[in-house]
Amino acid sequence: MLDDNENSNAALVQRAAEGLALGRAVLARQSFSMLLGAELAAIEPGYAEIHLPITPDLMQQRGVVHGGAIAYLADNAQTFAGGSVLGEKVATLETKINYLRPALAGTLVARARLIGHGKRTAVTTCEIFARSDEGEIMVAAAQGTIMTLADPSAEAAK
Amino acid sequence: MLDDNENSNAALVQRAAEGLALGRAVLARQSFSMLLGAELAAIEPGYAEIHLPITPDLMQQRGVVHGGAIAYLADNAQTFAGGSVLGEKVATLETKINYLRPALAGTLVARARLIGHGKRTAVTTCEIFARSDEGEIMVAAAQGTIMTLADPSAEAAK
Amino acid sequence: MLDDNENSNAALVQRAAEGLALGRAVLARQSFSMLLGAELAAIEPGYAEIHLPITPDLMQQRGVVHGGAIAYLADNAQTFAGGSVLGEKVATLETKINYLRPALAGTLVARARLIGHGKRTAVTTCEIFARSDEGEIMVAAAQGTIMTLADPSAEAAK
Amino acid sequence: MLDDNENSNAALVQRAAEGLALGRAVLARQSFSMLLGAELAAIEPGYAEIHLPITPDLMQQRGVVHGGAIAYLADNAQTFAGGSVLGEKVATLETKINYLRPALAGTLVARARLIGHGKRTAVTTCEIFARSDEGEIMVAAAQGTIMTLADPSAEAAK
Repeated sequence: MLDDNENSNAALVQRAAEGLALGRAVLARQSFSMLLGAELAAIEPGYAEIHLPITPDLMQQRGVVHGGAIAYLADNAQTFAGGSVLGEKVATLETKINYLRPALAGTLVARARLIGHGKRTAVTTCEIFARSDEGEIMVAAAQGTIMTLADPSAEAAK
Repeated sequence: MLDDNENSNAALVQRAAEGLALGRAVLARQSFSMLLGAELAAIEPGYAEIHLPITPDLMQQRGVVHGGAIAYLADNAQTFAGGSVLGEKVATLETKINYLRPALAGTLVARARLIGHGKRTAVTTCEIFARSDEGEIMVAAAQGTIMTLADPSAEAAK
Repeated sequence: MLDDNENSNAALVQRAAEGLALGRAVLARQSFSMLLGAELAAIEPGYAEIHLPITPDLMQQRGVVHGGAIAYLADNAQTFAGGSVLGEKVATLETKINYLRPALAGTLVARARLIGHGKRTAVTTCEIFARSDEGEIMVAAAQGTIMTLADPSAEAAK
Repeated sequence: MLDDNENSNAALVQRAAEGLALGRAVLARQSFSMLLGAELAAIEPGYAEIHLPITPDLMQQRGVVHGGAIAYLADNAQTFAGGSVLGEKVATLETKINYLRPALAGTLVARARLIGHGKRTAVTTCEIFARSDEGEIMVAAAQGTIMTLADPSAEAAK
C-alpha cells in the first residue's frame, strides 16, 4: 500500500503544481497585475493567495498604501479562489472591503477562501495582511461574489 | 446689485478653482494614482469626478479593464467626495462595488456623490462609466463610507 | 390618432394595475412582510416602492427603528425591483446597507431602482426614507444584486 | 497558587455571566427582537451569538425564511459583537450580506466575530447557520462596521 500512497501523493503534488502554473499563466496575462507586481503564491480548490510587494508606486498622499491597491488585491485573490471551483471563465460580480489599518511596508498578502458556491456563483472572503519582519498584521477584509461568465453572445445581448 | 452679483460669482468661481487646484495637488501626491494616470476632473462640496484613460496597462487576461482598476477609481472618487465636506484628512472606511459591464476602451469616468454625512463619517455613492465617442455606458456602481482620521496618537493606540 | 393614444394609455394603465396587483399578491404570501406590516406602494419595470408604518414593534432599545427592520425593507424593495425585469422567480443574492440617521416615527418608504441587468442578475440601489408630516428624511441607502433562481434540480445539486 | 487560579476562574465565570445577563437585558428592550423571537446565546469580548427559532412568521412566498429576517439577525449579532469591545452605546454603521442557501426549518444561529477595531469603530464578520437535527448548514455570511454613538448633541447637529 505504500507504493499506492506514494503514487497518490505524487499525483496530488503534480496536480497542485499544474494548478499553480495555470494560475500564474492567467495572472501573467493580466497587464494590470504585472504593472503592480502581483504574484500568485498559492491556489487550490477553494483557496488563493496573492502577494504584492509594497513599493513607492502603491502609495497615497500620506505615505501608506493606497486603498485602491488593496482593493485590487482583494478582488483578484477572490476571483482566483472562485475560479478554483467554478473554472477559469469567471469574473467578480461584486465585492466589499473594510479597511482596518494602514499598510506601510513589506509585502501585502491576500488570502481568499471560498465559503459557499453553486454552479454559477461562489461567495468568498479575503483577509489582506501586511507582512514584514515583525510578522503579519491584518489591514483589510473583503467579501464578495464570483460568477461564471455567460457565453459571449449572451453577454453581447445585454 | 449687478456688481454685487458679479463679485459673488467671481468669488464662487475663484473658490471652485482653488478647490480643484487643491484636490489636484493631493492627487498628484498619490504615487498610485500617478502610476495609473488618474485625473481629478471636478470637485465641489459633495461631489468629485475622476477620470482614468484606459490603457493596455489596466487590462486583465480577457482584454478588458481589470476590476481592481475600477475599484481603485471608485474608492478614490468617493474619498475625494467625502473629503469635500469632511476636510482633507479623511480615508475610505469601507466600500462596496458592483460590476455591471466590461470596460473596453476610452476613458473611465467616476462620479462620486455624497448622500449623507455627520461630523465624522460621510456616505457616498459612485457611478463609473466608460466614455467613448459613442457616449457613456455605466460599468460599475459603488457605495461606501468615508471617515475623518483620528489624531495620530489615538491611531497609534489601536 | 387620438383614439389610438387613448387605447394605448388605457392598456398601459391596465398593465400597471395588473403588475401592482400581482406584486401585492406576492407580498401577501410573505408571512414576514405581513408580520411587519409592509405594503407595496408601486411597482413598474425597474422600480419598486414598499412602505412600512413605524410601530412600537419595530423598535430597538433606544426607541428608534431597529436597523434590521430597515434592512428587511431595503432587501425586499430591491427584490421586487429586480423581479420587475427578471421575472417573479428571483431572490436577493447579496445586499449592502449604510445607515444614515435614526428613524423615529411616521412611515418608512423604500424606493428601489434598477441600475443595470443581464439575463440572470440585476443590480439595484435603494433609498429608505422616514416620512412624516414634516416631509421625508433619508435614513439609509442600499445596493445589491438580485438573481434568477436556478431550476430546483440544479439548486439541489449544490 | 491553586486557590488563586480558582478565584480567577470564578471571577471570569462571574464576569461572563454578568455580560450575558447585561446583553440579554439589552435584547429584551428591543421590541423588534422580541417580535421575532431572538435569543442571545453568548457574548464575550469580540464575539456574540444570537439564535432565532424558525417559525411560519419568518417566511417569504416560497416557504423559506425571508432574507430580511436573516439580515436582521446578522445585523444584530454584529452590533452585539462590536458592543462587546466598544461599549453599550453603539450602532451598526453599515453591513453587507451574501445569501448562500435557503433556510427551511430549525433554528437560525448567527455567530459574529470581531476582526479589528479602533476606539470608534469595529469591523465584524458574521456567519449565519440553519441548525436542525441533521447539523448546521451555512445560509448567509455578513461583514460590517459598528460605531460608537456620538453624544446626542453632536448627533442633533447633523
